[in-house]
Amino acid sequence: MTESRLEKIKILILDADGVLTRGEILYTGAELESKAFNVKDGFGIRMLKDAGIMVGVITGRHSEAIERRAKELGLDFCRQGVKDKSSLLAAILEQAGCSPEESAFVGDDIPDISVMKSAGLGIAVADAHETVRECADMVTANSGGNGAVREVCESILKAKGLWEGILKSWA
Amino acid sequence: MTESRLEKIKILILDADGVLTRGEILYTGAELESKAFNVKDGFGIRMLKDAGIMVGVITGRHSEAIERRAKELGLDFCRQGVKDKSSLLAAILEQAGCSPEESAFVGDDIPDISVMKSAGLGIAVADAHETVRECADMVTANSGGNGAVREVCESILKAKGLWEGILKSWA
Amino acid sequence: MTESRLEKIKILILDADGVLTRGEILYTGAELESKAFNVKDGFGIRMLKDAGIMVGVITGRHSEAIERRAKELGLDFCRQGVKDKSSLLAAILEQAGCSPEESAFVGDDIPDISVMKSAGLGIAVADAHETVRECADMVTANSGGNGAVREVCESILKAKGLWEGILKSWA
Amino acid sequence: MTESRLEKIKILILDADGVLTRGEILYTGAELESKAFNVKDGFGIRMLKDAGIMVGVITGRHSEAIERRAKELGLDFCRQGVKDKSSLLAAILEQAGCSPEESAFVGDDIPDISVMKSAGLGIAVADAHETVRECADMVTANSGGNGAVREVCESILKAKGLWEGILKSWA
Repeated sequence: MTESRLEKIKILILDADGVLTRGEILYTGAELESKAFNVKDGFGIRMLKDAGIMVGVITGRHSEAIERRAKELGLDFCRQGVKDKSSLLAAILEQAGCSPEESAFVGDDIPDISVMKSAGLGIAVADAHETVRECADMVTANSGGNGAVREVCESILKAKGLWEGILKSWA
Repeated sequence: MTESRLEKIKILILDADGVLTRGEILYTGAELESKAFNVKDGFGIRMLKDAGIMVGVITGRHSEAIERRAKELGLDFCRQGVKDKSSLLAAILEQAGCSPEESAFVGDDIPDISVMKSAGLGIAVADAHETVRECADMVTANSGGNGAVREVCESILKAKGLWEGILKSWA
Repeated sequence: MTESRLEKIKILILDADGVLTRGEILYTGAELESKAFNVKDGFGIRMLKDAGIMVGVITGRHSEAIERRAKELGLDFCRQGVKDKSSLLAAILEQAGCSPEESAFVGDDIPDISVMKSAGLGIAVADAHETVRECADMVTANSGGNGAVREVCESILKAKGLWEGILKSWA
Repeated sequence: MTESRLEKIKILILDADGVLTRGEILYTGAELESKAFNVKDGFGIRMLKDAGIMVGVITGRHSEAIERRAKELGLDFCRQGVKDKSSLLAAILEQAGCSPEESAFVGDDIPDISVMKSAGLGIAVADAHETVRECADMVTANSGGNGAVREVCESILKAKGLWEGILKSWA
């Protein structure tokens, strides 16, 4: 069931805090803000993009660290400080020429519920809020910042039958 | 029992290190100090404040990171370097026009015991010092910096019968 | 057995990395180095010092972060970049007018074995190297940077019969 | 089996992210990047180098933090931004006058598979990607950044019959 829905995905949208990170923000003195990213997640995103799937970020907060990580990974878009994630998703899908069924959103907290329902596939990370897990189409085995994004990337590639070929290209 | 006491809370006071954080301070070179905060905790505090409940910090140490986090979350007060937390609580309650029964304090270590007893509801985080847990009215399932504050916020909102409405407003 | 030895302690010496920290050093760019300290450990050290017990650091590496943490906690000494920890311990004990039986050393790795044997009480943190744990007089239940030092401080205060009085003074 | 292969190792090559670290990169603002290293790993590398075994890093990413850690530990080489790890390994082995059987490579993710097969001994950290663990000659009990490298260093020293002597020199 989920596999057939994963197979259709042309665009993957990620929340930032708690999905691309463990949900921690590090404040240093009065101005610096840090976030920790997972290198294996990053490699998953690159494999997905190499396979022609669009990947982007939609998040309610704003930080330079996310902007920088998005650039490093060559994400197709990175929209921060977003109040209404569902409306933005609709606009992005229209611009990308994708139907909702071709989109997946990965979230972890209550502000993600609505956009997860708007997307074709709503994915909750393992340590997402209980309510988010309950209304998700799929819950990852790994937690946010700790392999959840990598797991989603591989699930899509496997559903599309691309995984074995990628492995062979690296071996 | 605890639920009826949670229902009365009009003001929530948090210790900082070990409650809003995992109890770690990061020193960089001779001057910089960092603290890691939990984004889900932050969202819990915002929901609580949106429901009209006051939230503030009383802590024995001092750091710019706490000041900044307090401002970001729009906390009603942030008092650092406090020697006598109980006396300050009394002064804050008087100024806010709240009775002790309308206050809750979340702590994790021995200097919090007295103020936890002065508050209407003394709450210990899951990884609080054994003595603190023993004298608490309520112990969270989550540890400090790892969801304890979020759990307290939701417990108050649920006891007040506000939780379902909040969830609906986001769905 | 261990209790009677803990009762005699007048000076507690701590290794730094892996004892006062989790054993991680954070490098930022070409110059900055960070270490994470545990606030509960810090409070344990203060209680110990308030009870008149000397506390200091002897470590093989060198960092500004350790120097700063030592100053903040008012440690009696902080000796970094030490090659021969045993010889330095002997010199410190002589200067302090303490016998080896009145000293305890907390370590986590092989370079600590010799000095742990020289001290009256050699204490290994829970996640110390296997060989270090085997030759220790006492192994903490908590790991380094995660409460091991706090546990040692309280064990000494309890063995000296001071713990209940301290708790009462805070309650 | 593995022991006889460990005994032959004259050169140990490490991937960086996920092997020397937990696989996390910390971004601060627009420019700073941090990585956390394990002090016990560092001591393992020093023991190995003192025993005359070469140690170096080959990694696909690039950071000043890795460069600095390599210098601090006196690594024999540190090659970053490497696209084709296998070819570089061959060149390094030729320059060092080592056969593939005298080399070991420690990796954690798919880009390491090929070079792990080229080395005499391909070692996966405990939390390596499933595919990497499956094609490894040896999987460590400890995870990357959390003792995996230390474990490999000691395994080599033990297989060579050097471990007991080293322990005696420290006791």
